[in-house]
Amino acid sequence: MVKKPAPDATRRSERSRRAIYAAALALVAEAGYPKTTVEGIAARAGVGKQTIYRWWPSKAEVLLEAFLDLGEQTAREAGQEPYSVPDTGDLAADLKTVLRATVDELLDPRFDAPARALAAEGVVNEQLGRQVVGKLLEPQLQLYVDRLRAAQDTGEVRAGIDPRIALELFVSPLAQRWLQRTGPLSHGYTDTLVDYALYGLAPR
Amino acid sequence: MVKKPAPDATRRSERSRRAIYAAALALVAEAGYPKTTVEGIAARAGVGKQTIYRWWPSKAEVLLEAFLDLGEQTAREAGQEPYSVPDTGDLAADLKTVLRATVDELLDPRFDAPARALAAEGVVNEQLGRQVVGKLLEPQLQLYVDRLRAAQDTGEVRAGIDPRIALELFVSPLAQRWLQRTGPLSHGYTDTLVDYALYGLAPR
Repeated sequence: MVKKPAPDATRRSERSRRAIYAAALALVAEAGYPKTTVEGIAARAGVGKQTIYRWWPSKAEVLLEAFLDLGEQTAREAGQEPYSVPDTGDLAADLKTVLRATVDELLDPRFDAPARALAAEGVVNEQLGRQVVGKLLEPQLQLYVDRLRAAQDTGEVRAGIDPRIALELFVSPLAQRWLQRTGPLSHGYTDTLVDYALYGLAPR
Repeated sequence: MVKKPAPDATRRSERSRRAIYAAALALVAEAGYPKTTVEGIAARAGVGKQTIYRWWPSKAEVLLEAFLDLGEQTAREAGQEPYSVPDTGDLAADLKTVLRATVDELLDPRFDAPARALAAEGVVNEQLGRQVVGKLLEPQLQLYVDRLRAAQDTGEVRAGIDPRIALELFVSPLAQRWLQRTGPLSHGYTDTLVDYALYGLAPR
């Protein structure tokens, strides 16, 4: 006899999934990536470890999805479309909007500790670093590439500029200040980066 | 009776110092910062741990000095003045020269593994991170501040620009590509960063 699925099975598994994300993020923040295990995540989430292995092949994938989910949640709470760069026709304003939201996310304690743990491990663990960049960072950077390409079409950005390098002029300073604590993060700071990048340091 | 110092004591302690630096860099690269100990450095360098404690209060200070020394050595081998930014009167050329040398250093295997281990620990260990930035990174960034100020005096950089933020437009992209492996490092890449930062992304 085949067991019928309970009517609330989907809701239950959604609940498990959220508990697993929360457990994974909390554990990596507290113990660091090397000491975070699928067993530990399962115990903290109150599920069996087979529940985790049913959905994800390893802790790296659980964590990457947990971060994607956290990014969606924090964007929605801030009243923004997650993982998007607006196009109002004003490139400077659009970049400032997104970078201000990124500052808010980086300063959010829910994000800071687990993201630092993952980033630190990525620096010394090339395989994980490449997964984090490929699955979390690069898709976000591509949104800037698209927005800069659109700005090239309307003449706001010079035609010869490589958008994949250009975005680094405002994204990387923010990343370095966050990762290495080389300076304070604020909306005024990211606004300044956008102005310097668009108009250059040399007199016009 | 006071024991006379041996005539070759200075040379001997210089040899010990070099052995300690090499041991500290090798150990942190292999084992990571948390597992590197003063005892381990002493054993590998073939000295007693009291020799280390006579000169440095803890492993962090040994490592920071070892990196300063490595930076001096690699600059000298490359025929350059260590920890300096030239001023030939051509800002773009001077920045390109220094950034090309930095690319070479970041790609040098003697530097890469120990520097990654220290940088990774600095991401999650705020106290160490602030020491690394304060003693290794910020003094180098100040050289760019000075060079950009000189360029403001000659009119090559706009007067209203904050040099401490401006330098991040070309330094931070290189740092992020190295730390997070978000793209390849080359002289062409850093040349492009300098041109974009000085002349801006918007049409002139």
